[in-house]
Amino acid sequence: MLVQKSRYHGVAAEIKLQIEQRIWLPGDRIPSIRKMSKMQSISPMTVLKAYELLESAGWIYAKPRSGYFVAAHLNRLAIPQQTIPQLTNRAIKINEHVFEVLTACKRPDVVPLGSAFPDPALFPLKQLGQALAKTIKTMPVQSAVTELPPGSVALRRAIAKRYIRDGIDVSIDDIVITSGAMESLGLSLMAVTKPGDIVAIESPAFYGVLQTVERLQLKAIEITTDPQLGMSVDALKHAVNSHDIKACWLMSKYQNPLGASMPDANKLAILDVLAAKQIPLLEDDVYSELYFSEHKPKPIKAYDQQGLVLHCSSFSKCLAPGFRVGWVVAGRYAKQIEQLQFMTTLSAAVPNQLAIAEFVLHGNYDTHLRRLRRQLESRQQQMRHAIEQYFPLETKITRPSGGYFLWVVLPDHINTGELLQTLLDDHNISIAPGTLFASDQQYKNCMRINCSYLLTDKIRQALITLARCIA
Amino acid sequence: MLVQKSRYHGVAAEIKLQIEQRIWLPGDRIPSIRKMSKMQSISPMTVLKAYELLESAGWIYAKPRSGYFVAAHLNRLAIPQQTIPQLTNRAIKINEHVFEVLTACKRPDVVPLGSAFPDPALFPLKQLGQALAKTIKTMPVQSAVTELPPGSVALRRAIAKRYIRDGIDVSIDDIVITSGAMESLGLSLMAVTKPGDIVAIESPAFYGVLQTVERLQLKAIEITTDPQLGMSVDALKHAVNSHDIKACWLMSKYQNPLGASMPDANKLAILDVLAAKQIPLLEDDVYSELYFSEHKPKPIKAYDQQGLVLHCSSFSKCLAPGFRVGWVVAGRYAKQIEQLQFMTTLSAAVPNQLAIAEFVLHGNYDTHLRRLRRQLESRQQQMRHAIEQYFPLETKITRPSGGYFLWVVLPDHINTGELLQTLLDDHNISIAPGTLFASDQQYKNCMRINCSYLLTDKIRQALITLARCIA
Repeated sequence: MLVQKSRYHGVAAEIKLQIEQRIWLPGDRIPSIRKMSKMQSISPMTVLKAYELLESAGWIYAKPRSGYFVAAHLNRLAIPQQTIPQLTNRAIKINEHVFEVLTACKRPDVVPLGSAFPDPALFPLKQLGQALAKTIKTMPVQSAVTELPPGSVALRRAIAKRYIRDGIDVSIDDIVITSGAMESLGLSLMAVTKPGDIVAIESPAFYGVLQTVERLQLKAIEITTDPQLGMSVDALKHAVNSHDIKACWLMSKYQNPLGASMPDANKLAILDVLAAKQIPLLEDDVYSELYFSEHKPKPIKAYDQQGLVLHCSSFSKCLAPGFRVGWVVAGRYAKQIEQLQFMTTLSAAVPNQLAIAEFVLHGNYDTHLRRLRRQLESRQQQMRHAIEQYFPLETKITRPSGGYFLWVVLPDHINTGELLQTLLDDHNISIAPGTLFASDQQYKNCMRINCSYLLTDKIRQALITLARCIA
Repeated sequence: MLVQKSRYHGVAAEIKLQIEQRIWLPGDRIPSIRKMSKMQSISPMTVLKAYELLESAGWIYAKPRSGYFVAAHLNRLAIPQQTIPQLTNRAIKINEHVFEVLTACKRPDVVPLGSAFPDPALFPLKQLGQALAKTIKTMPVQSAVTELPPGSVALRRAIAKRYIRDGIDVSIDDIVITSGAMESLGLSLMAVTKPGDIVAIESPAFYGVLQTVERLQLKAIEITTDPQLGMSVDALKHAVNSHDIKACWLMSKYQNPLGASMPDANKLAILDVLAAKQIPLLEDDVYSELYFSEHKPKPIKAYDQQGLVLHCSSFSKCLAPGFRVGWVVAGRYAKQIEQLQFMTTLSAAVPNQLAIAEFVLHGNYDTHLRRLRRQLESRQQQMRHAIEQYFPLETKITRPSGGYFLWVVLPDHINTGELLQTLLDDHNISIAPGTLFASDQQYKNCMRINCSYLLTDKIRQALITLARCIA
């Protein structure tokens, strides 16, 4: 069946107009081909052609088995390039700003663009509460003792099952349950290093990395990290060949703060570089469930034949914030990490472990995750679109394929640390200034924006204010 | 009114016979004076005289406003003397036995005489579950963020109120909520030392102290600790004058493993010794609520005018095991500890904090504590009595005035580490060997016994087996 060009061009133009008139917002799902065909009394083929036209022009995008969605189509702003930090190893001194930002994010009157936490309204707190109540009622009194490290067998089984479903061979005994991923990462780093050792980290890196490196009195080499591709394989290779690196710590997916995700080839290459020198890798994968692609990207752990990768994650970002339940697939390091945990926090909270096991095994965890992913993707589209609209043309912004952070690079003369002061003092808005994510006052003109919140008028107004302060 | 001597002697003899026939067990409350007077149709004065006679002979003991209780009257065994460890500072190497004992205590088939945890059946898990369920239902979604360190305001208020009731001036801002006391102690030690520093600790000491000292790469001076009076003031003074000590860590009450409790004068003297050199004191007071005396003994913190004492405690031993909620009254160190917590575990679990605040403020916390104390005292009496009965006469045993540990000193040739092996392998019984509590294979002939369990036939049989293995 031939479709008249003028016919589907007309349909496309109509939808484009509706998007311009903000009838459809970025992130919204537009009617399916079948529905649109009925609505407009036109053939499904005409609708398909119109949608393909809109997609190729960047107005909408298709998601397999989900439908068509309005894109953040206003792509005025460039994607940032990677910066090259100096390859020296040094002791880390934490930026005091971190605690200021974290404290500001606790104030309910502050628009939390600087927050590290996803919008708490995204989580099934009520259902979790029911799981917790049920758990407590049926929990054997001995649980406080039997669920000591390595943690609840039920929960470790639930976690191992999900790895296996993802094609990753993990046994119950490989897993140690911790008080969130921060603990699993800290204990893992403690297990594989001693004070004075050198660790390869990303630049920019999650400030928790810098803090942990400082606390354990390690030295860090900051490795160039591409805003799209993640840690540079070449830069890591160079560092590994010129320094006695004892561990590497990175996020292969939706890296905090860049949102970068490694191609599978890079994951393999990174692992090869490390394996050649038997350097253990701490893979921080807390955003692993927050992917926007059809299939879940593999972690580096999936390629790990030698047990060099300590894969750390948690339920804090995808299910149960505040429950403080995380884990590490520690393999050969499990016993050591378990013993370190005995010495530091003893164990993760017991009812919390059991309630999460109950929810993951018998609740609607996958349904929740599907909804969460769709919401996060849609909110990112909206937020990014608004930034494209309001921010000066020199701004650069990432387009992450998962997670809930945008990395925004502003003109060189802007100092986001100073900007934060103004924003907090005069406008009750927080941002995460770029200097939080490196040791040496790098990324002064950058900031991380939390895009997990619904773009309400308040948040839109905050973005406009932010843009005005920048201009 | 004159009471005939033969009359009350007769009554006393009768009760003594009943105790010998195990109609009344150690720890049991015997009928009140009024009740006994009615039962036997004798004057209250006669009963009083009889009870006084039994008390002076060590068969029963009076507790103000509670009544008369059968004593562990079989005092065949001596109380142990203090041992004098060498006053050298050294790096600590953890005894691998610790993890073996901890792991054994998780097995439900093992009689947990070696366990560090109180009998979980002693705690109001059902009521706590209700508090947790209620909390979750009413918890604002933002709580995961607002309850970040220093922790829930409601819980810190509940804790501060109890300090104030005990006559100790503590404000909400002095308190940091942690994942149990292990974390508050670890973070406190991290806040006041750096690797290589020397710390004064008890000998014998809770193995958690030794582990933390090792993990933070500190050196320890083990200070003589009396089984009744706690850390020796003179030995501490000597150590402080001959070494550059950066911190002191001790338990002033129901010390683990000895059960020692400092007289108030010693608390003041210890504080004076430390204050003279401005050495911070970590006071581990996790058993503070488990006192058998009429009034709650004061912690050293109560005498602290200069803010040198970091007072650490938790709800794990007195209310909610497995909830992992503890705290430190950190005063001038609060900000620093809060920041360290951000870097290690982020925060204690949020619903757990709120549920405990709910229970402490509006539940029957004090009623629960009164019952718990009475049960622990009664169980200690029973357990100690049985040990007095079955163990060889050369055994020495402590008589703590709170907590739930007995420290048992066996003849010199006994090695409790080897004993543990036999007990675990052949009899499914655990003990905590003395070598766990010091760095240098000291206390080989000692063991810590958990006396928080009801003296069931199974436990009595375990004690008989233990006695047989020793003899």
